[in-house]
Amino acid sequence: MLILGLDPGSLKTGFGLVEKQGSSLKLVDAGCLTCGKDWELPRRLAHICRELQVLLDARNPVLAALESPFHGMNSRSLIVLAQARGALLATLGLAGIEIREYSPAEVKSSVTGNGRADKDQVSRMVQLLLGLQAGVQTPAPGKPKTAPKGWGPDVTDALAVALCCAQRFRLEQLGRKG
Amino acid sequence: MLILGLDPGSLKTGFGLVEKQGSSLKLVDAGCLTCGKDWELPRRLAHICRELQVLLDARNPVLAALESPFHGMNSRSLIVLAQARGALLATLGLAGIEIREYSPAEVKSSVTGNGRADKDQVSRMVQLLLGLQAGVQTPAPGKPKTAPKGWGPDVTDALAVALCCAQRFRLEQLGRKG
Repeated sequence: MLILGLDPGSLKTGFGLVEKQGSSLKLVDAGCLTCGKDWELPRRLAHICRELQVLLDARNPVLAALESPFHGMNSRSLIVLAQARGALLATLGLAGIEIREYSPAEVKSSVTGNGRADKDQVSRMVQLLLGLQAGVQTPAPGKPKTAPKGWGPDVTDALAVALCCAQRFRLEQLGRKG
Repeated sequence: MLILGLDPGSLKTGFGLVEKQGSSLKLVDAGCLTCGKDWELPRRLAHICRELQVLLDARNPVLAALESPFHGMNSRSLIVLAQARGALLATLGLAGIEIREYSPAEVKSSVTGNGRADKDQVSRMVQLLLGLQAGVQTPAPGKPKTAPKGWGPDVTDALAVALCCAQRFRLEQLGRKG
């Protein structure tokens, strides 16, 4: 089952695709949907929708997962984030993809065991959970699994929410069976 | 020149289409893009994007205008509004339509002369500026121009921002000539 994690932003939206087979988790793809810094907002939002659509067409994930917006942000940052979120949610909705949302603390807790973990801890645990070495090479078929060069927090946060979703989905299924 | 005003919301998005010919302004269409109250957010956002696209295909406006988000809102309302805005801006961006934004005070001031006008004053002035009687009938070709039954604040606010845009656009043009 392919799960897409998204970390929305109006300049950079991180994405991470994780394949869940039973209890095993495998990295399929990860990266950023990036906009030009000088682009106006509607062009940026249109671009991330278009890029997300390309990704959905190519990969066809079953579930998409995002963090719920963080209420403690200042209103300017909140507006920017929520607008990017709205554009992405609309694209996912148009594609008919099921969506799950988790609070930042749920994601951190699910990946590191600590709801207040910092970005570095999240990043290290994401790599461990996906069986990646904390390296700097881009993974390729048949090559050793190492974390791609230049993975920023947008990408590891997107992978973290995909991993949280995979774990929760498993717990949901166990709960139904139990 | 056809101007589309939008008043975003995740349940109801008001729209108003105003034709500007020189200094004259004419109502072309107005109404609401409405979602089911029990729909989940992605479905609602997808629906307003789809409906907006239908409207754009049918009417082909040159400019679209929206109010800038109001920073004084509580964060929950701000997130809901900004997500709907993001979805609409992405749709307008994908359609390549030029977008203008005005603060709520600019819109009120432009339509009523008072940046702190209430919803009723805005509604009455919108009807006056568009040459409508404050009536309750739905306008139809050849029929007296009267405000359609059931126009709520979503619709008059959308028309108000379209009228503000028309006025500002005229001032911009005069400024360029002057």
